[in-house]
Amino acid sequence: MSDYLPTPRTTPARKADRVGYDRATAHAVLDEAVLCHVGFVADGRPVVLPQLHARVGEVLYLHGSTGARALRTAADGGLEVCVTVTLLDGLVLSRSAFNHSANYRSVVVHGTATVVDDPEEKAAALDALVEAVVPGRAAGTRGPNRRELAATAVLRLGLEEVSVKTRSGPPGDDPEDLELPYWAGVLPLATVPGEPVPAPELPADAEVPEHVRSWRRGPGPVGGRG
Amino acid sequence: MSDYLPTPRTTPARKADRVGYDRATAHAVLDEAVLCHVGFVADGRPVVLPQLHARVGEVLYLHGSTGARALRTAADGGLEVCVTVTLLDGLVLSRSAFNHSANYRSVVVHGTATVVDDPEEKAAALDALVEAVVPGRAAGTRGPNRRELAATAVLRLGLEEVSVKTRSGPPGDDPEDLELPYWAGVLPLATVPGEPVPAPELPADAEVPEHVRSWRRGPGPVGGRG
Repeated sequence: MSDYLPTPRTTPARKADRVGYDRATAHAVLDEAVLCHVGFVADGRPVVLPQLHARVGEVLYLHGSTGARALRTAADGGLEVCVTVTLLDGLVLSRSAFNHSANYRSVVVHGTATVVDDPEEKAAALDALVEAVVPGRAAGTRGPNRRELAATAVLRLGLEEVSVKTRSGPPGDDPEDLELPYWAGVLPLATVPGEPVPAPELPADAEVPEHVRSWRRGPGPVGGRG
Repeated sequence: MSDYLPTPRTTPARKADRVGYDRATAHAVLDEAVLCHVGFVADGRPVVLPQLHARVGEVLYLHGSTGARALRTAADGGLEVCVTVTLLDGLVLSRSAFNHSANYRSVVVHGTATVVDDPEEKAAALDALVEAVVPGRAAGTRGPNRRELAATAVLRLGLEEVSVKTRSGPPGDDPEDLELPYWAGVLPLATVPGEPVPAPELPADAEVPEHVRSWRRGPGPVGGRG
Protein backbone atom coordinates (compact mmCIF):
# COMPACT_ATOMS: atom_id res chain seq x y z
CA MET A 1 0.00 0.00 0.00
CA SER A 2 1.27 3.47 -0.82
CA ASP A 3 1.62 6.10 1.87
CA TYR A 4 -0.80 9.00 2.19
CA LEU A 5 0.60 12.15 0.62
CA PRO A 6 1.70 14.84 3.07
CA THR A 7 -0.02 18.22 2.76
CA PRO A 8 0.78 21.53 4.45
CA ARG A 9 -1.82 20.71 7.11
CA THR A 10 -0.39 17.28 7.84
CA THR A 11 3.24 18.44 7.89
CA PRO A 12 4.20 19.46 11.41
CA ALA A 13 6.54 22.32 12.16
CA ARG A 14 8.47 20.27 14.70
CA LYS A 15 8.87 16.80 16.17
CA ALA A 16 8.51 15.62 12.59
CA ASP A 17 10.14 12.31 13.46
CA ARG A 18 6.97 11.15 15.15
CA VAL A 19 4.73 11.90 12.18
CA GLY A 20 4.18 9.55 9.28
CA TYR A 21 1.78 8.76 6.48
CA ASP A 22 1.82 4.97 6.43
CA ARG A 23 -1.52 3.76 5.17
CA ALA A 24 -1.54 0.37 6.90
CA THR A 25 -0.68 1.95 10.26
CA ALA A 26 -3.40 4.57 9.82
CA HIS A 27 -5.93 1.87 8.99
CA ALA A 28 -4.90 -0.23 11.99
CA VAL A 29 -5.24 2.71 14.40
CA LEU A 30 -8.62 3.74 12.99
CA ASP A 31 -9.83 0.15 13.24
CA GLU A 32 -8.59 -0.42 16.78
CA ALA A 33 -10.11 2.77 18.17
CA VAL A 34 -13.70 2.44 19.35
CA LEU A 35 -14.31 6.16 19.17
CA CYS A 36 -12.98 9.24 17.47
CA HIS A 37 -13.18 12.95 18.17
CA VAL A 38 -14.73 14.99 15.37
CA GLY A 39 -13.87 18.67 15.14
CA PHE A 40 -15.72 21.21 13.02
CA VAL A 41 -16.25 24.96 12.98
CA ALA A 42 -19.56 26.51 14.05
CA ASP A 43 -19.93 30.31 13.96
CA GLY A 44 -16.19 30.55 13.48
CA ARG A 45 -15.48 28.60 16.66
CA PRO A 46 -14.25 25.07 17.19
CA VAL A 47 -16.48 22.22 18.34
CA VAL A 48 -15.15 18.75 19.22
CA LEU A 49 -17.50 15.81 19.83
CA PRO A 50 -16.88 12.12 20.44
CA GLN A 51 -18.38 9.80 17.84
CA LEU A 52 -18.36 6.19 16.77
CA HIS A 53 -16.74 5.54 13.41
CA ALA A 54 -16.16 2.74 10.94
CA ARG A 55 -13.56 2.49 8.21
CA VAL A 56 -14.55 0.80 4.96
CA GLY A 57 -11.56 0.82 2.64
CA GLU A 58 -10.64 4.47 2.15
CA VAL A 59 -13.88 5.83 3.60
CA LEU A 60 -14.57 6.72 7.21
CA TYR A 61 -18.23 6.65 8.23
CA LEU A 62 -19.34 8.69 11.22
CA HIS A 63 -22.48 8.36 13.21
CA GLY A 64 -23.82 11.83 12.59
CA SER A 65 -24.88 13.16 15.97
CA THR A 66 -23.05 16.41 15.41
CA GLY A 67 -26.13 18.57 15.94
CA ALA A 68 -28.75 19.73 13.52
CA ARG A 69 -26.85 22.65 12.11
CA ALA A 70 -23.64 20.77 11.39
CA LEU A 71 -25.71 18.11 9.67
CA ARG A 72 -27.41 20.75 7.49
CA THR A 73 -23.97 22.04 6.50
CA ALA A 74 -22.85 18.49 5.76
CA ALA A 75 -25.95 17.94 3.63
CA ASP A 76 -25.47 21.27 1.87
CA GLY A 77 -22.11 20.81 0.17
CA GLY A 78 -20.17 19.28 3.02
CA LEU A 79 -18.80 19.99 6.47
CA GLU A 80 -15.08 20.59 6.96
CA VAL A 81 -13.98 18.24 9.71
CA CYS A 82 -10.86 17.07 11.44
CA VAL A 83 -11.29 13.56 12.82
CA THR A 84 -8.74 12.47 15.37
CA VAL A 85 -8.31 9.04 16.92
CA THR A 86 -5.88 8.40 19.76
CA LEU A 87 -4.85 5.09 21.32
CA LEU A 88 -3.05 5.55 24.61
CA ASP A 89 -0.52 2.71 24.94
CA GLY A 90 1.35 3.76 28.05
CA LEU A 91 2.60 6.42 30.42
CA VAL A 92 6.26 7.34 29.94
CA LEU A 93 7.90 8.20 33.25
CA SER A 94 11.32 9.78 32.95
CA ARG A 95 13.73 10.92 35.66
CA SER A 96 13.05 14.53 34.71
CA ALA A 97 9.55 15.96 34.89
CA PHE A 98 10.27 17.63 31.55
CA ASN A 99 10.73 14.39 29.60
CA HIS A 100 7.51 12.77 30.80
CA SER A 101 5.43 11.68 27.89
CA ALA A 102 2.92 9.13 26.68
CA ASN A 103 3.18 6.24 24.29
CA TYR A 104 0.36 6.52 21.82
CA ARG A 105 -0.78 5.99 18.26
CA SER A 106 -2.83 8.81 16.81
CA VAL A 107 -4.40 9.45 13.40
CA VAL A 108 -5.61 12.82 12.14
CA VAL A 109 -7.91 12.98 9.11
CA HIS A 110 -8.77 16.28 7.45
CA GLY A 111 -11.53 16.53 4.89
CA THR A 112 -15.06 17.36 3.96
CA ALA A 113 -17.75 15.13 5.40
CA THR A 114 -20.93 14.67 3.43
CA VAL A 115 -24.24 13.09 4.34
CA VAL A 116 -24.83 9.60 3.00
CA ASP A 117 -28.10 9.73 1.06
CA ASP A 118 -28.01 6.50 -0.90
CA PRO A 119 -30.11 3.97 1.07
CA GLU A 120 -27.87 1.03 0.19
CA GLU A 121 -24.67 2.81 1.18
CA LYS A 122 -26.37 3.98 4.35
CA ALA A 123 -27.51 0.50 5.33
CA ALA A 124 -24.03 -0.87 4.64
CA ALA A 125 -22.44 1.95 6.65
CA LEU A 126 -24.70 1.26 9.64
CA ASP A 127 -23.75 -2.40 9.43
CA ALA A 128 -20.10 -1.37 9.33
CA LEU A 129 -20.58 0.91 12.35
CA VAL A 130 -21.98 -1.98 14.40
CA GLU A 131 -19.23 -4.31 13.17
CA ALA A 132 -16.52 -1.74 13.91
CA VAL A 133 -17.56 -1.61 17.56
CA VAL A 134 -18.20 -5.35 18.00
CA PRO A 135 -17.00 -7.56 15.16
CA GLY A 136 -19.57 -10.27 14.46
CA ARG A 137 -22.38 -8.28 16.01
CA ALA A 138 -24.29 -7.20 12.89
CA ALA A 139 -25.51 -10.74 12.31
CA GLY A 140 -26.65 -10.92 15.94
CA THR A 141 -29.14 -8.04 15.73
CA ARG A 142 -32.30 -6.93 14.02
CA GLY A 143 -31.20 -4.75 11.11
CA PRO A 144 -32.58 -1.24 10.67
CA ASN A 145 -36.06 -0.75 9.26
CA ARG A 146 -37.07 2.09 6.98
CA ARG A 147 -38.03 4.41 9.84
CA GLU A 148 -34.74 3.82 11.64
CA LEU A 149 -32.71 4.35 8.48
CA ALA A 150 -34.48 7.67 7.96
CA ALA A 151 -33.85 8.69 11.57
CA THR A 152 -30.09 8.07 11.41
CA ALA A 153 -27.62 10.45 9.84
CA VAL A 154 -24.39 8.96 8.58
CA LEU A 155 -21.48 11.09 7.44
CA ARG A 156 -18.92 9.99 4.88
CA LEU A 157 -15.32 11.19 4.89
CA GLY A 158 -12.76 10.11 2.34
CA LEU A 159 -9.34 9.11 3.68
CA GLU A 160 -7.14 11.39 1.62
CA GLU A 161 -5.45 13.86 3.94
CA VAL A 162 -4.25 11.58 6.71
CA SER A 163 -1.33 11.59 9.12
CA VAL A 164 -0.19 9.21 11.83
CA LYS A 165 1.71 10.18 14.94
CA THR A 166 3.16 7.62 17.30
CA ARG A 167 5.46 7.37 20.26
CA SER A 168 6.71 4.08 21.65
CA GLY A 169 9.60 2.81 23.69
CA PRO A 170 11.35 3.83 26.89
CA PRO A 171 11.69 7.33 28.36
CA GLY A 172 14.08 9.74 26.66
CA ASP A 173 16.01 11.14 29.58
CA ASP A 174 18.97 13.45 29.13
CA PRO A 175 22.28 11.58 29.64
CA GLU A 176 23.12 13.64 32.74
CA ASP A 177 19.86 12.53 34.38
CA LEU A 178 20.37 8.78 33.99
CA GLU A 179 22.08 8.41 37.37
CA LEU A 180 19.39 10.25 39.32
CA PRO A 181 17.80 8.12 42.04
CA TYR A 182 14.37 8.03 40.40
CA TRP A 183 12.58 5.07 38.90
CA ALA A 184 11.93 5.48 35.19
CA GLY A 185 10.09 3.38 32.69
CA VAL A 186 6.77 2.83 30.99
CA LEU A 187 3.45 1.89 32.52
CA PRO A 188 1.59 0.16 29.68
CA LEU A 189 -2.14 0.79 29.43
CA ALA A 190 -4.81 -1.19 27.66
CA THR A 191 -8.55 -1.07 27.14
CA VAL A 192 -9.90 -4.24 28.67
CA PRO A 193 -13.42 -5.69 28.72
CA GLY A 194 -15.09 -6.71 31.96
CA GLU A 195 -17.80 -9.29 32.51
CA PRO A 196 -20.74 -8.78 30.11
CA VAL A 197 -23.84 -7.45 31.90
CA PRO A 198 -26.98 -9.01 30.37
CA ALA A 199 -30.03 -6.83 29.72
CA PRO A 200 -32.52 -7.12 32.59
CA GLU A 201 -35.18 -8.84 30.44
CA LEU A 202 -32.91 -11.74 29.45
CA PRO A 203 -33.34 -15.12 31.15
CA ALA A 204 -30.64 -15.69 33.76
CA ASP A 205 -29.09 -18.52 31.74
CA ALA A 206 -28.97 -16.68 28.40
CA GLU A 207 -25.68 -17.59 26.81
CA VAL A 208 -23.29 -14.73 26.07
CA PRO A 209 -22.46 -15.00 22.37
CA GLU A 210 -18.95 -15.61 21.13
CA HIS A 211 -18.67 -12.14 19.51
CA VAL A 212 -19.19 -10.60 22.96
CA ARG A 213 -17.04 -13.05 24.92
CA SER A 214 -14.12 -12.72 22.54
CA TRP A 215 -14.14 -8.91 22.21
CA ARG A 216 -10.70 -7.37 22.60
CA ARG A 217 -8.60 -4.55 21.25
CA GLY A 218 -4.92 -3.92 21.04
CA PRO A 219 -2.00 -5.89 22.36
CA GLY A 220 -3.39 -6.73 25.79
CA PRO A 221 -2.43 -5.27 29.12
CA VAL A 222 1.00 -6.79 29.55
CA GLY A 223 3.36 -4.38 28.04
CA GLY A 224 4.22 -5.67 24.55
CA ARG A 225 3.98 -2.12 23.33
CA GLY A 226 5.93 -0.61 26.27
CA MET B 1 -20.86 23.25 44.31
CA SER B 2 -23.05 25.14 41.88
CA ASP B 3 -23.63 23.87 38.36
CA TYR B 4 -21.98 25.45 35.33
CA LEU B 5 -24.36 27.83 33.56
CA PRO B 6 -25.68 26.59 30.22
CA THR B 7 -24.93 28.75 27.19
CA PRO B 8 -26.25 28.53 23.63
CA ARG B 9 -23.16 26.51 22.70
CA THR B 10 -23.58 24.03 25.53
CA THR B 11 -27.34 23.60 25.05
CA PRO B 12 -27.99 20.74 22.63
CA ALA B 13 -30.84 20.77 20.16
CA ARG B 14 -31.80 17.20 21.01
CA LYS B 15 -31.13 14.31 23.39
CA ALA B 16 -31.03 16.99 26.06
CA ASP B 17 -31.64 14.38 28.74
CA ARG B 18 -28.05 13.22 28.46
CA VAL B 19 -26.52 16.67 28.90
CA GLY B 20 -25.85 18.32 32.24
CA TYR B 21 -23.76 20.98 33.90
CA ASP B 22 -22.88 19.37 37.21
CA ARG B 23 -19.57 20.76 38.36
CA ALA B 24 -18.47 17.80 40.48
CA THR B 25 -19.16 15.35 37.64
CA ALA B 26 -17.27 17.53 35.17
CA HIS B 27 -14.31 17.71 37.53
CA ALA B 28 -14.33 13.95 38.08
CA VAL B 29 -14.38 13.21 34.34
CA LEU B 30 -11.61 15.71 33.60
CA ASP B 31 -9.51 14.24 36.41
CA GLU B 32 -10.04 10.60 35.41
CA ALA B 33 -9.16 11.16 31.75
CA VAL B 34 -5.46 10.88 30.96
CA LEU B 35 -5.82 12.80 27.73
CA CYS B 36 -8.12 15.29 26.06
CA HIS B 37 -8.73 16.34 22.48
CA VAL B 38 -8.16 20.02 21.81
CA GLY B 39 -9.93 21.61 18.84
CA PHE B 40 -9.09 24.98 17.37
CA VAL B 41 -9.51 26.78 14.06
CA ALA B 42 -6.57 27.33 11.72
CA ASP B 43 -7.17 29.14 8.41
CA GLY B 44 -10.88 28.74 8.99
CA ARG B 45 -10.59 24.98 9.26
CA PRO B 46 -10.83 22.69 12.26
CA VAL B 47 -7.82 21.00 13.86
CA VAL B 48 -8.11 18.42 16.66
CA LEU B 49 -5.05 17.20 18.56
CA PRO B 50 -4.63 14.91 21.57
CA GLN B 51 -3.03 16.53 24.59
CA LEU B 52 -2.31 15.89 28.24
CA HIS B 53 -4.20 18.12 30.63
CA ALA B 54 -4.43 18.90 34.33
CA ARG B 55 -7.27 20.52 36.22
CA VAL B 56 -6.39 22.86 39.08
CA GLY B 57 -9.60 24.14 40.61
CA GLU B 58 -11.46 25.91 37.82
CA VAL B 59 -8.48 26.06 35.48
CA LEU B 60 -7.50 23.49 32.89
CA TYR B 61 -3.83 23.45 31.91
CA LEU B 62 -2.83 22.03 28.55
CA HIS B 63 0.58 20.93 27.41
CA GLY B 64 0.91 23.29 24.50
CA SER B 65 2.10 21.17 21.58
CA THR B 66 -0.53 22.63 19.30
CA GLY B 67 1.95 23.87 16.73
CA ALA B 68 3.84 27.10 16.49
CA ARG B 69 1.09 29.16 14.91
CA ALA B 70 -1.63 28.16 17.35
CA LEU B 71 0.75 29.03 20.16
CA ARG B 72 1.40 32.47 18.67
CA THR B 73 -2.35 33.03 18.52
CA ALA B 74 -2.66 31.86 22.11
CA ALA B 75 0.12 34.25 23.15
CA ASP B 76 -1.41 37.08 21.15
CA GLY B 77 -4.77 37.54 22.87
CA GLY B 78 -5.83 33.93 23.13
CA LEU B 79 -6.81 30.90 21.09
CA GLU B 80 -10.44 29.82 20.89
CA VAL B 81 -10.52 26.16 21.79
CA CYS B 82 -12.95 23.39 22.45
CA VAL B 83 -11.48 20.77 24.78
CA THR B 84 -13.28 17.45 24.89
CA VAL B 85 -12.62 14.53 27.19
CA THR B 86 -14.35 11.18 26.76
CA LEU B 87 -14.29 8.14 29.03
CA LEU B 88 -15.65 5.04 27.34
CA ASP B 89 -17.32 2.91 30.01
CA GLY B 90 -18.90 0.21 27.92
CA LEU B 91 -20.41 -1.00 24.67
CA VAL B 92 -24.21 -1.10 24.65
CA LEU B 93 -25.49 -4.00 22.57
CA SER B 94 -29.21 -3.90 21.85
CA ARG B 95 -31.41 -6.36 19.95
CA SER B 96 -31.78 -3.80 17.16
CA ALA B 97 -28.75 -2.48 15.31
CA PHE B 98 -30.36 0.96 15.56
CA ASN B 99 -30.29 1.13 19.37
CA HIS B 100 -26.63 0.19 19.71
CA SER B 101 -24.78 2.77 21.74
CA ALA B 102 -21.93 3.32 24.14
CA ASN B 103 -21.83 4.08 27.83
CA TYR B 104 -19.57 7.04 28.34
CA ARG B 105 -18.88 10.19 30.30
CA SER B 106 -17.81 13.18 28.26
CA VAL B 107 -17.00 16.79 29.09
CA VAL B 108 -16.84 19.65 26.59
CA VAL B 109 -15.13 22.91 27.55
CA HIS B 110 -15.37 25.99 25.35
CA GLY B 111 -13.18 28.99 25.93
CA THR B 112 -10.11 31.03 25.12
CA ALA B 113 -6.77 29.47 25.97
CA THR B 114 -3.91 31.76 26.83
CA VAL B 115 -0.21 31.11 27.27
CA VAL B 116 1.01 30.88 30.87
CA ASP B 117 3.80 33.45 31.19
CA ASP B 118 4.22 33.72 34.94
CA PRO B 119 7.14 31.43 35.88
CA GLU B 120 5.60 30.36 39.18
CA GLU B 121 2.24 29.51 37.64
CA LYS B 122 4.04 27.66 34.85
CA ALA B 123 6.14 25.59 37.24
CA ALA B 124 3.04 24.75 39.27
CA ALA B 125 1.13 23.85 36.11
CA LEU B 126 3.90 21.51 34.95
CA ASP B 127 3.86 19.85 38.37
CA ALA B 128 0.10 19.51 38.07
CA LEU B 129 0.46 17.99 34.59
CA VAL B 130 2.82 15.30 35.90
CA GLU B 131 0.57 14.68 38.91
CA ALA B 132 -2.55 14.48 36.75
CA VAL B 133 -1.05 11.63 34.75
CA VAL B 134 0.55 9.78 37.67
CA PRO B 135 -0.48 11.00 41.13
CA GLY B 136 2.55 11.07 43.42
CA ARG B 137 4.99 11.28 40.54
CA ALA B 138 6.07 14.91 40.80
CA ALA B 139 8.02 14.17 43.99
CA GLY B 140 9.72 11.25 42.22
CA THR B 141 11.35 13.28 39.46
CA ARG B 142 13.85 16.04 38.85
CA GLY B 143 11.82 19.23 38.51
CA PRO B 144 12.22 21.47 35.46
CA ASN B 145 15.22 23.77 35.21
CA ARG B 146 15.13 27.21 33.66
CA ARG B 147 15.93 26.00 30.15
CA GLU B 148 13.19 23.36 30.30
CA LEU B 149 10.66 25.82 31.64
CA ALA B 150 11.44 28.15 28.76
CA ALA B 151 11.13 25.30 26.25
CA THR B 152 7.68 24.25 27.41
CA ALA B 153 4.48 26.03 26.45
CA VAL B 154 1.57 25.66 28.82
CA LEU B 155 -1.92 26.86 27.94
CA ARG B 156 -4.47 27.97 30.51
CA LEU B 157 -8.22 27.61 29.98
CA GLY B 158 -10.81 28.71 32.52
CA LEU B 159 -13.61 26.28 33.26
CA GLU B 160 -16.59 28.51 32.59
CA GLU B 161 -18.48 27.17 29.60
CA VAL B 162 -18.65 23.47 30.44
CA SER B 163 -21.10 20.67 29.73
CA VAL B 164 -21.20 17.02 30.67
CA LYS B 165 -22.80 14.27 28.63
CA THR B 166 -23.21 10.75 29.94
CA ARG B 167 -24.91 7.51 29.09
CA SER B 168 -25.07 4.58 31.47
CA GLY B 169 -27.22 1.55 32.02
CA PRO B 170 -28.67 -1.22 29.89
CA PRO B 171 -29.66 -1.08 26.21
CA GLY B 172 -32.79 0.85 25.30
CA ASP B 173 -34.55 -1.55 22.98
CA ASP B 174 -38.02 -0.89 21.64
CA PRO B 175 -40.66 -2.96 23.51
CA GLU B 176 -41.51 -4.96 20.38
CA ASP B 177 -37.87 -6.06 20.07
CA LEU B 178 -37.50 -7.48 23.59
CA GLU B 179 -38.54 -10.99 22.55
CA LEU B 180 -36.12 -11.22 19.63
CA PRO B 181 -33.66 -14.10 19.96
CA TYR B 182 -30.59 -11.86 20.29
CA TRP B 183 -28.38 -11.41 23.31
CA ALA B 184 -28.41 -7.85 24.61
CA GLY B 185 -26.50 -6.13 27.34
CA VAL B 186 -23.45 -4.09 28.13
CA LEU B 187 -19.80 -5.00 27.72
CA PRO B 188 -18.00 -2.83 30.31
CA LEU B 189 -14.62 -1.41 29.31
CA ALA B 190 -11.85 -0.08 31.47
CA THR B 191 -8.36 1.34 31.06
CA VAL B 192 -6.06 -1.03 32.89
CA PRO B 193 -2.33 -0.83 33.60
CA GLY B 194 0.00 -3.67 32.68
CA GLU B 195 3.31 -4.59 34.26
CA PRO B 196 5.64 -1.58 34.53
CA VAL B 197 8.54 -1.79 32.06
CA PRO B 198 11.70 -0.36 33.67
CA ALA B 199 13.98 1.89 31.64
CA PRO B 200 16.87 -0.11 30.15
CA GLU B 201 19.52 1.67 32.27
CA LEU B 202 17.91 0.72 35.58
CA PRO B 203 19.39 -2.11 37.67
CA ALA B 204 17.35 -5.28 37.32
CA ASP B 205 16.26 -5.16 40.95
CA ALA B 206 15.20 -1.49 40.97
CA GLU B 207 12.03 -1.31 43.01
CA VAL B 208 8.93 -0.02 41.23
CA PRO B 209 7.65 2.87 43.35
CA GLU B 210 4.25 2.81 44.97
CA HIS B 211 2.91 5.65 42.79
CA VAL B 212 3.53 3.46 39.73
CA ARG B 213 2.38 0.16 41.23
CA SER B 214 -0.87 1.66 42.53
CA TRP B 215 -1.82 3.59 39.39
CA ARG B 216 -5.44 3.08 38.38
CA ARG B 217 -8.34 4.96 36.89
CA GLY B 218 -12.06 4.51 36.97
CA PRO B 219 -14.17 1.78 38.50
CA GLY B 220 -12.08 -1.21 37.41
CA PRO B 221 -12.86 -3.72 34.72
CA VAL B 222 -15.70 -5.58 36.34
CA GLY B 223 -18.80 -3.82 35.31
CA GLY B 224 -19.84 -1.57 38.21
CA ARG B 225 -20.64 1.08 35.68
CA GLY B 226 -22.42 -1.26 33.22
